[in-house]
Amino acid sequence: MTPEERKRRRDDDDDDKKEDPRAFAFDASVSLESLRLAQADFATARDWDQFHTPRNVLLAMVGEVGELSELFQWRGDDECSVGLPQWSEHDKTHLGEEMADVLLYLVRLADQCSVDLPTAARRKLEKNKQKYPPELCKGSAAKYTEYQTKNE
Amino acid sequence: MTPEERKRRRDDDDDDKKEDPRAFAFDASVSLESLRLAQADFATARDWDQFHTPRNVLLAMVGEVGELSELFQWRGDDECSVGLPQWSEHDKTHLGEEMADVLLYLVRLADQCSVDLPTAARRKLEKNKQKYPPELCKGSAAKYTEYQTKNE
Amino acid sequence: MTPEERKRRRDDDDDDKKEDPRAFAFDASVSLESLRLAQADFATARDWDQFHTPRNVLLAMVGEVGELSELFQWRGDDECSVGLPQWSEHDKTHLGEEMADVLLYLVRLADQCSVDLPTAARRKLEKNKQKYPPELCKGSAAKYTEYQTKNE
Amino acid sequence: MTPEERKRRRDDDDDDKKEDPRAFAFDASVSLESLRLAQADFATARDWDQFHTPRNVLLAMVGEVGELSELFQWRGDDECSVGLPQWSEHDKTHLGEEMADVLLYLVRLADQCSVDLPTAARRKLEKNKQKYPPELCKGSAAKYTEYQTKNE
Repeated sequence: MTPEERKRRRDDDDDDKKEDPRAFAFDASVSLESLRLAQADFATARDWDQFHTPRNVLLAMVGEVGELSELFQWRGDDECSVGLPQWSEHDKTHLGEEMADVLLYLVRLADQCSVDLPTAARRKLEKNKQKYPPELCKGSAAKYTEYQTKNE
Repeated sequence: MTPEERKRRRDDDDDDKKEDPRAFAFDASVSLESLRLAQADFATARDWDQFHTPRNVLLAMVGEVGELSELFQWRGDDECSVGLPQWSEHDKTHLGEEMADVLLYLVRLADQCSVDLPTAARRKLEKNKQKYPPELCKGSAAKYTEYQTKNE
Repeated sequence: MTPEERKRRRDDDDDDKKEDPRAFAFDASVSLESLRLAQADFATARDWDQFHTPRNVLLAMVGEVGELSELFQWRGDDECSVGLPQWSEHDKTHLGEEMADVLLYLVRLADQCSVDLPTAARRKLEKNKQKYPPELCKGSAAKYTEYQTKNE
Repeated sequence: MTPEERKRRRDDDDDDKKEDPRAFAFDASVSLESLRLAQADFATARDWDQFHTPRNVLLAMVGEVGELSELFQWRGDDECSVGLPQWSEHDKTHLGEEMADVLLYLVRLADQCSVDLPTAARRKLEKNKQKYPPELCKGSAAKYTEYQTKNE
């Protein structure tokens, strides 16, 4: 199934999400490297590299995390269930923009720090798999929390 | 030039970074969708989807942003210049892990909110290009800050 | 009623909290200025003023906000109701420590920025009272959210 | 010297700040309890207690931390030295407002969690004094960073 098919299926059949969590997908054609390049070109074209020191970009990212949090601050968990069915399309578009801002600054931060972010992410995922063996972690919330706490 | 060639060149010739900002690159083979899938499989294998509500994952991401900030908190700008030449390999590996944690939770958050993060990022980049025309934005820090402030 | 009496009453009669929200109180003898002085003395005695630049202290505070968020990340709203009756004494003590860390860095940040934080807080409260007139704001969550959004 | 005298002296003689770091002071008359009470009255008068669950208030505070960070994001350390002599009065007033927002939500969070914030802060200060003995901590940045890292 291509990502386009997955999405179409999801739009048709939103209620099945729980039965098939794979029914939602991102656009599979976007690499982190393509975003890094686009951000770098954007900055260079505006002569903004001079402002993009690691600590400046980090603080800018913290600012965007704050804007993202604001979207969730007055809606309790019951208005924010998985898939956000309670949110309007307008609010979800806004949400996507704030998430994008966090991502774009994170990518820029990694670039300005010469950190290969996608490689770091794949390694961290492998490490997490070792750290949390499925057979030990499966189970109650209490066990999960304890397991997390012991390991963090 | 392939990403591998870019990287090799960078390792050989670090001082030229300013002349050629393209000399650093991410692994170009990693899509955001591949990370989303890996994270989703990771959670399902551990029966952790039940804990990954949007607000829970958001707070977990805020926690990781805090850990990332801690790495920068006692080093002034002069110890954090572009490319982080002042940092040890060990510290840069740690930095990559904290960035990875932020990214992985952001990807998970987007998944649990049914937000197509890469598409949102590409759209936001386009919007930023319209909002900050290069011919108006090029120039001094003062103009940049004012321009940003007026628009944000 | 002294703060001590308020507290005693609260311990005796926790279920009445909703009826009497004043039943809980802070120790009324601690001024922000006393914390500022204590923090300043602490730094000077260790020769740490040199590290406490505004941006360093800000990033340190962001780190502590992350640690505070971690305490809430895997507990849904139903495990975090007002007063945190679901939390153990141990967890609440830990929570107090993380809140204290945020406060102490915020106080230090204000000091290093020469910002009179308590005066700023009192002014902001006055401003908020003007901005959100009780007669317009009372009412449903929807109105609250809209009102907030329009004004922020 | 009363706080008022300290302040007056500071206004007269700003350049001496480095010689006498105690020359700046907060308004000493504001307790955290007075802010807690004012915030509680503010919420009750607007019927907003219903929105002020611990996790909602926490996310609101994260939002304000983001706004505070934005004020520092495009100014390097050289434009943010202690006392912020490079900032305009207008920018410092704005800064005070953002710090106030963080403080007010932190106070509200503590109230909604039944955490005695000033007592927690005083205890944490005592703990820090034990954890970082002056005779061991005095010295170079390297030692400070290592000491911090080992202990955190």
